[in-house]
Amino acid sequence: MKRVMLTVAYDGTAYHGWQVQDGAQTIESELNRAIEEITHEKVEVSGASRTDAGVHAMGNLAVFDTNARMPAEKFSYALNTHLPDDIKVVASREVAADFHPRFVQTEKTYCYRICNSQFPNPLKRLYTHYSYTKMDTDLMQRAADYLVGEHDFKSLSSIHTQAKTTVREITAAKVERVDDEIRITVKGYGFLYNMVRIIAGTLMEIGAGKYPPEKMQEILDACDRNAAGPTAPACGLTLVEIRILDE
Amino acid sequence: MKRVMLTVAYDGTAYHGWQVQDGAQTIESELNRAIEEITHEKVEVSGASRTDAGVHAMGNLAVFDTNARMPAEKFSYALNTHLPDDIKVVASREVAADFHPRFVQTEKTYCYRICNSQFPNPLKRLYTHYSYTKMDTDLMQRAADYLVGEHDFKSLSSIHTQAKTTVREITAAKVERVDDEIRITVKGYGFLYNMVRIIAGTLMEIGAGKYPPEKMQEILDACDRNAAGPTAPACGLTLVEIRILDE
Repeated sequence: MKRVMLTVAYDGTAYHGWQVQDGAQTIESELNRAIEEITHEKVEVSGASRTDAGVHAMGNLAVFDTNARMPAEKFSYALNTHLPDDIKVVASREVAADFHPRFVQTEKTYCYRICNSQFPNPLKRLYTHYSYTKMDTDLMQRAADYLVGEHDFKSLSSIHTQAKTTVREITAAKVERVDDEIRITVKGYGFLYNMVRIIAGTLMEIGAGKYPPEKMQEILDACDRNAAGPTAPACGLTLVEIRILDE
Repeated sequence: MKRVMLTVAYDGTAYHGWQVQDGAQTIESELNRAIEEITHEKVEVSGASRTDAGVHAMGNLAVFDTNARMPAEKFSYALNTHLPDDIKVVASREVAADFHPRFVQTEKTYCYRICNSQFPNPLKRLYTHYSYTKMDTDLMQRAADYLVGEHDFKSLSSIHTQAKTTVREITAAKVERVDDEIRITVKGYGFLYNMVRIIAGTLMEIGAGKYPPEKMQEILDACDRNAAGPTAPACGLTLVEIRILDE
């Protein structure tokens, strides 16, 4: 028996999120099916991040246990021939039998992409949220700077969050314009439910001039979800990377 | 009666190309339907470039004649509410009654995108051609340099081309690596059928080391389609812009 860790990239458009749900097509159910086709074992992968419906990933992580003789490194190639075009395993390797990427210290990188132009861009419609409202990325960056460090992010997380504490540490928050796109890149040691999408929704309001950048500090201080902006749509969010800090 | 010119962006994935064909969903048929819904007139748009099935565009051009009172500039906004998410009109304006973008001097810019990494990228699968073969973009650029200028491009066009002459002028040909992508950008005053896709297919073989860059000159000199590489898949090609040089 060995434990194999997969790095998984996917276009979340067609899926009901990561986690297996009765009858719904999910990333997890597709991975389970593909692994079972290869190993002929009943398998349940366990993911590092249970992304919501419509959210994309370049590097989510998942582990599973198998008796298959196939070397862990070969699983990526073998699985890709059994996976649809919108899910690909981009790395696979063996990890310790008790290792789980959800229960070790990790740094996650998320990118929220906004297509911010006069007209929607059909070639980006699946991977960006479209807004014609002009946004000032300098104002958004100044607001994002308040997020870096250890804070209580209660205002910027869903009221449905189940976490014991809403204190988290963000290590970087960058806002940049790239062609017709605004990209919000946020790194941190842990995120609350919907946190990046609420950060993005709040930064968009500040970028549009609805509030000054200093409002972000007030929002943090309020410890109240109602103080922040709306939850930005799922399609704009991509989980870029999960970096394991202790293994 | 006035003539309106549309600048059209589309994801070609779901369409049987630009041109109306019996029963098939095309960019042209979607535009005709949307315009008719707005003007209540029978309309047939006429395009500058009849892109193939699966080819994308950021700026194809099309004209149509209408008696509608709506100012030409408003058509972009009105049409977008009647068009699907994968087709958007990004500009509209009035042109002279006898103007047609296919019959004036234009400079077209095409981009061919190759996802060139160890594993496919699900988020780019619709807009790039995937190849794991390592390619040297310096070799590709040296080969592309032979294309710039006025040449007989018979070797680099489909045998089904209907053009009277196969002499064309390419004004720029750039090959660059951007993250996991190789982008081939080609500009010119006119292109033969499948020309950019055959250029891309040939540059990929040179990038992979199958031939030296100097081979491109031999290919041009041969005036024989068999001398060049394969036609690269449609999904990697985007018509970026059509610049009108005399109006």
